[in-house]
Amino acid sequence: MPRIRILTETDLRRVMALSPELIEAIDHAFRQLASGRVVMPKVLSMAIAEHNGEVDVKTAYVPGLDGFAIKVSPGFFDNPKIGLPSTSGLMMVLSSRTGQVQALLLDNGYLTDLRTAAAGAVAARALARPDATSACIIGAGLQARLQLQALTLVRPLRTALVWARDMDKAHAMAAEMAQVLGIDLRAEADPEAAVAQAEIIVTTTPATAPVLQAAWLRPGQHVTAMGSDQHGKNEIDPAALAIARYVPDRLSQTREMGELRAAIAAGVIAADREYADLGAVLAGAAPGRLDASDITLADLTGTGVQDTAIATLALARAGTAGTMIET
Amino acid sequence: MPRIRILTETDLRRVMALSPELIEAIDHAFRQLASGRVVMPKVLSMAIAEHNGEVDVKTAYVPGLDGFAIKVSPGFFDNPKIGLPSTSGLMMVLSSRTGQVQALLLDNGYLTDLRTAAAGAVAARALARPDATSACIIGAGLQARLQLQALTLVRPLRTALVWARDMDKAHAMAAEMAQVLGIDLRAEADPEAAVAQAEIIVTTTPATAPVLQAAWLRPGQHVTAMGSDQHGKNEIDPAALAIARYVPDRLSQTREMGELRAAIAAGVIAADREYADLGAVLAGAAPGRLDASDITLADLTGTGVQDTAIATLALARAGTAGTMIET
Repeated sequence: MPRIRILTETDLRRVMALSPELIEAIDHAFRQLASGRVVMPKVLSMAIAEHNGEVDVKTAYVPGLDGFAIKVSPGFFDNPKIGLPSTSGLMMVLSSRTGQVQALLLDNGYLTDLRTAAAGAVAARALARPDATSACIIGAGLQARLQLQALTLVRPLRTALVWARDMDKAHAMAAEMAQVLGIDLRAEADPEAAVAQAEIIVTTTPATAPVLQAAWLRPGQHVTAMGSDQHGKNEIDPAALAIARYVPDRLSQTREMGELRAAIAAGVIAADREYADLGAVLAGAAPGRLDASDITLADLTGTGVQDTAIATLALARAGTAGTMIET
Repeated sequence: MPRIRILTETDLRRVMALSPELIEAIDHAFRQLASGRVVMPKVLSMAIAEHNGEVDVKTAYVPGLDGFAIKVSPGFFDNPKIGLPSTSGLMMVLSSRTGQVQALLLDNGYLTDLRTAAAGAVAARALARPDATSACIIGAGLQARLQLQALTLVRPLRTALVWARDMDKAHAMAAEMAQVLGIDLRAEADPEAAVAQAEIIVTTTPATAPVLQAAWLRPGQHVTAMGSDQHGKNEIDPAALAIARYVPDRLSQTREMGELRAAIAAGVIAADREYADLGAVLAGAAPGRLDASDITLADLTGTGVQDTAIATLALARAGTAGTMIET
């Protein structure tokens, strides 16, 4: 009978954190995706409207890797009312040669949180001004914290501002993360003022109407929008896409579920307009920031190739940890 | 931390077999699918050409059930060369209310084998003549055995013939299953002769060119084609679709990966031609067999609602079996 390694969230937290090694793995994954050799089907997405839930399944096969991940990500947005997190899920790792399940990573979404934050670091490293020292985080949840931490790994951040719809949460995050990161971090009640003071802006909300207005942006800024990963979401004023150098994680996906979807729907961008993916920019095959005064905008919807990359790294680092089950 | 029940193939074989109860569960699932209340996204399918493999992910949400299944089915067709089965995989059961993973059914494809066979029984019960006593099975693998066994649960079978490309395997299956089922079962080297002697024909091959010719069919016969579940497969002569009453398990799927796909590609059937799904026939909302002389043809590609149905039944029957893992 086949044997399957089972790693729990506890096991995975022991070996995986936001690290330079992870950022390199995700950077490499985006380059491979843009190389055209990766097989990455469209996300399987199922809405369960009756329970305000949705579940996504993502996967990608990367030639040369022993395994590939299939990730199941549920988001059930009434869960907090009963004391449960909205998101959960797991990753499976299957053998690239035989298809047999090699490992189950019962991470409750932990690896997704990490690989999403790492993608923010990769995007900022590729697109933000190298000398950027100030950031603005829109949102004050877990991903807001992780995105800020990720920025500190790729840019010499000294100051950051947090704005959130619920300013109590913004204050709590500022107090907590100022300690953790040792930077000058404050909550700012006026989002326009917060954006005006930052060279890097990261939006991390599940908004369905823009929280960042195009008129607020000024030359030299970089924006990473990572909240939109479903058809109904929209964090960025569509007009921003007309003035920024726009870089999708995966164009075919951002057209359907990213900020680009909203901009196309608003008539600001033509539905068939082509943009080079982040991986092409990383590989030098497409332009990123050309000038210190450029406004750059990375639209991150989350890709299966990131899941395969982090699952592969997690399995390697876990060594013989976890439980083997004979099926 | 969430707790997840883990059931292995061994655990599942103890509680699940091809049974009247399972056939009812699958029958019910098809009716629900046709009712329009089920949410069943398109199959996620990824080909790994480099290793002659593919992996499918299927799911369906059925209102009223506590959980829904997500199934991962790999098929890696070079595996037999190294002594491994081509197919494997697992099912997950997620809470319909919170999305949290409740159970992992590490069945190595066993539940898929059962629910596929049960669908054959459901189709034959709905479409074959009630007095049918003779069958012909095309193919001599595991699913051939299970489909034959399934038929004996819904029709008073007395005789059956097996044809396969490899007649050694057909002889082996006939010897083995004659014992198990207590019917007159023989291998027949001429497929046309085998078909001519049967009232029910089931094709169970991974063929990519028709193994059943339209000219072989005669009035009153029922055909279940269950081998085509991928774009390249084709077991039935497209001309057969023009002379038979055609019943898909899910029209949107059979247009893309069933016998209907091949018939559309051959120009025999118009791409937009409408057919009622099996569930509508079961519910009496669409005609099945109208006359003893009709030729009926069920095209089964496998649906996520069958997976949710069998996973739900398996979990209920398993009770407290298996291992609980705290993630």
